[in-house]
Order: sequence, then structure tokens, then C-alpha cells
Amino acid sequence: MGNGRQQHEEITAYLRSAISSHEFAPGDPLPSESELCQRFESSRGPVRQAMATLRSEGLISSGRGRRTIVLDTVPTQSFDGVISYSEWCRQSGFEAGQITQSVTRRPADPTLAAALEIEPRAPVVSIFRLRLLNGIPAMVERLNYPLEVGQHLLTFDTDSGSIYQHLIDSGVDINNATRTIDAIGADPDDAQLLGITEGAPLLRVRRRAFTSNGTPVESSDDRYLPGTASFTLNTIRGNPSPLSMVSAR
Amino acid sequence: MGNGRQQHEEITAYLRSAISSHEFAPGDPLPSESELCQRFESSRGPVRQAMATLRSEGLISSGRGRRTIVLDTVPTQSFDGVISYSEWCRQSGFEAGQITQSVTRRPADPTLAAALEIEPRAPVVSIFRLRLLNGIPAMVERLNYPLEVGQHLLTFDTDSGSIYQHLIDSGVDINNATRTIDAIGADPDDAQLLGITEGAPLLRVRRRAFTSNGTPVESSDDRYLPGTASFTLNTIRGNPSPLSMVSAR
Repeated sequence: MGNGRQQHEEITAYLRSAISSHEFAPGDPLPSESELCQRFESSRGPVRQAMATLRSEGLISSGRGRRTIVLDTVPTQSFDGVISYSEWCRQSGFEAGQITQSVTRRPADPTLAAALEIEPRAPVVSIFRLRLLNGIPAMVERLNYPLEVGQHLLTFDTDSGSIYQHLIDSGVDINNATRTIDAIGADPDDAQLLGITEGAPLLRVRRRAFTSNGTPVESSDDRYLPGTASFTLNTIRGNPSPLSMVSAR
Repeated sequence: MGNGRQQHEEITAYLRSAISSHEFAPGDPLPSESELCQRFESSRGPVRQAMATLRSEGLISSGRGRRTIVLDTVPTQSFDGVISYSEWCRQSGFEAGQITQSVTRRPADPTLAAALEIEPRAPVVSIFRLRLLNGIPAMVERLNYPLEVGQHLLTFDTDSGSIYQHLIDSGVDINNATRTIDAIGADPDDAQLLGITEGAPLLRVRRRAFTSNGTPVESSDDRYLPGTASFTLNTIRGNPSPLSMVSAR
């Protein structure tokens, strides 16, 4: 199989790429289970596993009692693109930019301490940057790290590019992340940096990132200008949506 | 097996429910593949398929070279809850309410015609409602249907409850949906209905719903008061995120 991937991962990767290249276009039927088994010299298990994954990703229809078809394509996003604005820009064909406003070492306030699961007043490193897209203001970024992680940033030039890449290169284990998306009015800092009026609508993405054993390594707050960013996904009947709407009421 | 479900679906449903009930709590290791095979008298295929599905939903860690663990729980949402605000309220333990502003039969403008893939000026039925959560204004809802679908609503009491349920009961096939989430400032109608100032931030969810053969049946625009709704999801390294951030720039 090469490079240690399991067979269902090979099949998933092949189908995902064939769908995104429109080799299998929206509305087209997917090859049948038996055709895929033949093509990959595979038993049904890995083929079904691959199809379950693509269904969860919203790429193909439920196929219950019907031929499975390729859906209107919403591209999936790599984990790197989820964590890193720089990486998202690169994958989307944009030039990322950043203007650092501050790098601060300080004691955690109670909210941040709870998000990072550290003692209140334990030291954290906070980065505050204006992010650019093709040279134009796009997003206000607030990144917070426990000192053990953030220490790698105290001597890093945060105007030079991806903090995420620097943390990975420094050996930090970033395994999974939870994102919460909502709308918020611009605060005075947001308004000044983005050139908008206070209270104007922004799309906010709060993110907590964790090591593979569940220790928080980052708590962040990104605020995008409307028109700069939106989120999109497909959901298929019979497949629970991993994106959950929740109410604070 | 009961009710025709495949074995991997049984296993997925069992694990999903054990995770949401905290029988398997965040941070706990998941039972090993062989333990699960034993418990379900299953071969490895269906167990691996179930785990692939849960990983795509962000419920369990990647487990590459490590024991798979249960992640900080983000509940998944049923397809019904994705399409229907009434159903989402019911699942979330809230009381849904609605005050219809208008039910209109009219020719589609070019944007709506494109979204519904019908001829410009083909007839559509548009519903405009204020939605309540536990009796308090929460969201402004704009639903649009091609006449073939919307005809079922022209004689329906849209103050009586779920339009979605009524369409399903009328035999409309709603199989999958694409949602696009962004932030927008309140327009004069939004502001008046929600009791906020014009331009105040709202979380917008635009949705297109399709039959199982890809024909659009609905194009909608829901605008939530901040604090009423946010979206949340987990992403695991090695698993592409089905939620894709896109830029209109």
C-alpha cells in the first residue's frame, strides 16, 4: 500500500481528489461498490469505510436505496488550514500578511485560565495581530498560549509569518481543535485596525487547540470582516452534522 | 441487526450515544478495536468504518500510533435539526415560536432564480417570519421555494409550526443541504423585528436544500441575534474538515 496508509485511506484520498478535480462532477453517480472493489483490488469493508467518510464530509449523497451521487462540491479543509490563517491563505491562493500589535507575557485572567485549563494568574503569552489578505486588512487575531508553549514565541519575529508553523517546528503537539463561530460587533481595537465603525458586524471564530492527550495548547479569537470570510458545508440526510448550532440562552 | 441497519451503523450509533451520555467521557480511551469486535460480534471492517465516521464527526482523536481517546464533546446535529428551526429547538429543549410577516407568490428575481436553478421570473413562494425562542425574538427567517414545492404552503397556516414537517408530510424529497455562514448588519426589517439598531451584527445562515437527485427545493436566509446562536465543531489532525472557510475577495 505504500507509506503505511490503510487501504480505506487510499480509497478515500483517491475519491476525494477525483471529486475535487471534477473527474466525478456534481450530479454524477459514484462508481458502484463492486466497481470500486475491483479498481482497488479491495474487499467491501475498506470501500464502505471510504464512502462513510466521504458521506460525513458531505461530498456524496446518502445512497439509501438509490445510486450514490456526487454532491455540489464544498471543498474540505486540511487540519493545517483550520489552525493557521497563513496556511489557509496559501491553500486558497491568497497572500497572507500580518502586522503585530503586541506580544505580551502576562498572568491569565479567569476566562483565559479556564479556556487553557491552567491556574488563574498562571503566565500566558498573548499575540495581537492585524492579518492581511493580498495586502488588505481582513482579520484581527488574538492568540493566547500557556507559557510552556508561548515561550517559543517570545523571541520569534511574529511579523515573519506563521506562528503555527513555528510551534510545530518547535515540537509542540497540536492534534485537534474546537472552533466556535458567531457574529460580534467590532470593539474599539477591531474598528481602528479594520477601518470600520465600532459595533459593525464581524464574523468571529474562537478556537481551542489540544495535544493528542487533550491538554489545551492554544485559545484564540479571530474576527473577520464580512465579505472576507464565510463558512460553508454540506449535510446529507441520515448523517449527523458535525457542525452543531448551540444557544447561550 | 434489526430495522435493516448495517452493522457499522449499529456500532456508530452505540458509540455516539455512549459518548454523548458520557459513558465514555472526554479524555477517556475508547475501547480497542478488538474489544469492540468482541462486543458486537463483528469483524474489523465495520468497527473501523464506525471509528472513521466518529473521527469525521470530531468525536474521537486520530489515534495514529496512540490509543484513540474521546474528545471534548461537541454534540452532532440531526439532518432534521439542520433544516428546521422548529426541530432544532425541540432537540435543544427550547420552545419554538413564529410570527408570520408575509407569504408571497411572486416571480423569482435573478439571484433567487439562480439559487433555485429555475428560469428568471418563474413563480416562487416566499415566507417571511420572525422566529421566537422561548417566546423571545431570536431570528428573522426568509424561506423561498419553487412553486411546485411552495404550493403546499399557500394554504398552510405558517403560524402553526414547522414548514419543514409540512413539506415532508406533503411528500417533498429533502435529501441534502448546503449551508453558508457569515456575519451581516441588520437591515431595516431585521432591526424592527428583532428590536435592534440598523447595522447591528447578526449571524446569517443561508441554506440551499436539494432532492436526492440534486434538484434545489429551498433557498433560505436565517439571521440570528448574537447570543442566540453560535456554531461549534471539532477537527482532528489527519481528517479534513467538512466545514470550509471561503473568501469572496
